[in-house]
Amino acid sequence: MTTTIPTPKFLSVLDGETAKNPPIWFMRQAGRYLPEYRAVRATEPTFIDFCLNPEKAAEVTLQPMRRFPFDTAIVFADILLIPQALGQKVWFEAGEGPKLGDLPSVESMRDLTGQAGQALGAVGETLSRVRSVLEPDRALIGFAGAPWTVATYMIEGGSSDRSGARTYAYQNPEKLDALLSVLVDATVDYLSMQAASGAQALKLFESWAEGLSEPLFERLVIGPHKAIVQGLRDRGVTLPLIGFPRGAGALVETYAREVPVQGVALDTQAPKALGLAVQKTRTIQGALDPLLLRAGGDALARRVDELLEQWGGGPYIFNLGHGILPDTPIAHVEAVLARVTGK
Amino acid sequence: MTTTIPTPKFLSVLDGETAKNPPIWFMRQAGRYLPEYRAVRATEPTFIDFCLNPEKAAEVTLQPMRRFPFDTAIVFADILLIPQALGQKVWFEAGEGPKLGDLPSVESMRDLTGQAGQALGAVGETLSRVRSVLEPDRALIGFAGAPWTVATYMIEGGSSDRSGARTYAYQNPEKLDALLSVLVDATVDYLSMQAASGAQALKLFESWAEGLSEPLFERLVIGPHKAIVQGLRDRGVTLPLIGFPRGAGALVETYAREVPVQGVALDTQAPKALGLAVQKTRTIQGALDPLLLRAGGDALARRVDELLEQWGGGPYIFNLGHGILPDTPIAHVEAVLARVTGK
Repeated sequence: MTTTIPTPKFLSVLDGETAKNPPIWFMRQAGRYLPEYRAVRATEPTFIDFCLNPEKAAEVTLQPMRRFPFDTAIVFADILLIPQALGQKVWFEAGEGPKLGDLPSVESMRDLTGQAGQALGAVGETLSRVRSVLEPDRALIGFAGAPWTVATYMIEGGSSDRSGARTYAYQNPEKLDALLSVLVDATVDYLSMQAASGAQALKLFESWAEGLSEPLFERLVIGPHKAIVQGLRDRGVTLPLIGFPRGAGALVETYAREVPVQGVALDTQAPKALGLAVQKTRTIQGALDPLLLRAGGDALARRVDELLEQWGGGPYIFNLGHGILPDTPIAHVEAVLARVTGK
Repeated sequence: MTTTIPTPKFLSVLDGETAKNPPIWFMRQAGRYLPEYRAVRATEPTFIDFCLNPEKAAEVTLQPMRRFPFDTAIVFADILLIPQALGQKVWFEAGEGPKLGDLPSVESMRDLTGQAGQALGAVGETLSRVRSVLEPDRALIGFAGAPWTVATYMIEGGSSDRSGARTYAYQNPEKLDALLSVLVDATVDYLSMQAASGAQALKLFESWAEGLSEPLFERLVIGPHKAIVQGLRDRGVTLPLIGFPRGAGALVETYAREVPVQGVALDTQAPKALGLAVQKTRTIQGALDPLLLRAGGDALARRVDELLEQWGGGPYIFNLGHGILPDTPIAHVEAVLARVTGK
């Protein structure tokens, strides 16, 4: 007698199926809005050390899965682990966001790209731990920051309005292309390791796709994303991929046409028509405003219904358009889950 | 014998004509990148007083017109003059951007909406002065900040990431709608005054259209813009109008379909296809990246040619996608002008 292992709904939908009630998870669902997260976080003074501690990272990855009926867990990690693995110092100062040390030479970073997965093996260990205890009908996602987004931090030494990085792209095109190429290779190695460690889907976070002209978007976003997909396929990684070009506006359609990912995550602004256009060839994910989730009330309920109505007729994964905010009431998360799951 | 007064090319194109060489002007062309601007600005300690001094405001409006072959002048003023006229204190602190005092009650502001034009009569005086000396083949634009953008400053008390204002929109919908309604009425009065004072076209700056979900964009941007256009037409103002929903992404097409303006200004990100779609029914304006103008070099020349090539076959006004940056080399402005005008 064989036991049938159910395919997680998240993976069926990412494969193109339409679910009566869409699968749901939230970006940054393992985070500060949960008191149990804050309790574990308080045991580790350094944020990077926290991300690279498999026991603690697995625990916070699982916390929202215990508390809520989310369909999908996402490994707790940070998009700035890659610069760290490439020899650029990264640290977080309370209330100030990330800080990065001097940008290493491209040559020195290139020597390290093939060891990015190994250097960040702790993230693989987190994935293995989570996968071993997560119910079989719930999926586990791995992720990485996309090259341009990671490069903006590496070039500017921290958070910024990205104008320094965009100026660098105009004034030092060869240097920037070399940096992006290094990041593509490191990301392929890092995500391949995650695929081998229990991840069932992989997501690329291009958090800063906004404000780029079409030629820059082609060069800084579409090119590197295509190269990563190709690199993963060349390495034999067959997992479904989700791309999130946040802030790309009308260029999301170009992205969906040119980058062979299975899912496209949409940001808060994405209009109904854009989602429907992308949905013709891709699963879409998104796009509830985190500010509305935090605000709650009738406006939240109406918007959830509207999203389900406008996109639920095709392959659709319910999510936010950006990460959940630290001061979001847990009751609002529960209310949205009840509405989306119909339970 | 009659003398034929030439129609400024800017106005012909805004009326739907296609020019061999598009008309050109730059947002914030009267500004800190010009030494002669800095010299006049230094004579007036307070920025609001500077905007409301017709002699000085007219002088800086004219400075770029003397130095460069721009087709169009835009009155030197600020989008925060309207809150000032409605009784909210506005001041600028060096290096910090605008600060605003407590938000007055909607009732007290409503009493002042019909006098906004009169209260800001100095801007009309600036327009008259400029129009009286500007060559007849060069056009003069008046403008106002659009209601949602102005409201973000009024609600948050200064510059911000707008998340406070967006939360206010979710949590206090009636209050926000009342504030927007007051701003619509004040803006109609203010722009009517500008029309009567020499302006030949009017532009609405929605600087913060970014990140809004479709329902919020309909309510906070499209609704108030339509109301302003209707209000101006009801007051007999027949001037052509340009709307600039900066950061609206794919929603720019909805904007162009629903708001009966003659011109739609596009931001840095607007892709070729979006511009062509809008151009079917509207004149388009934009969208050179100010960071590229500042960076200069071959990349700048290539992008200028690309914009001319992709949009120059229809009604198109060359401009930036956002205001010119204070540290932009004047030689770069001259180079772009030479390329666009063919002279």
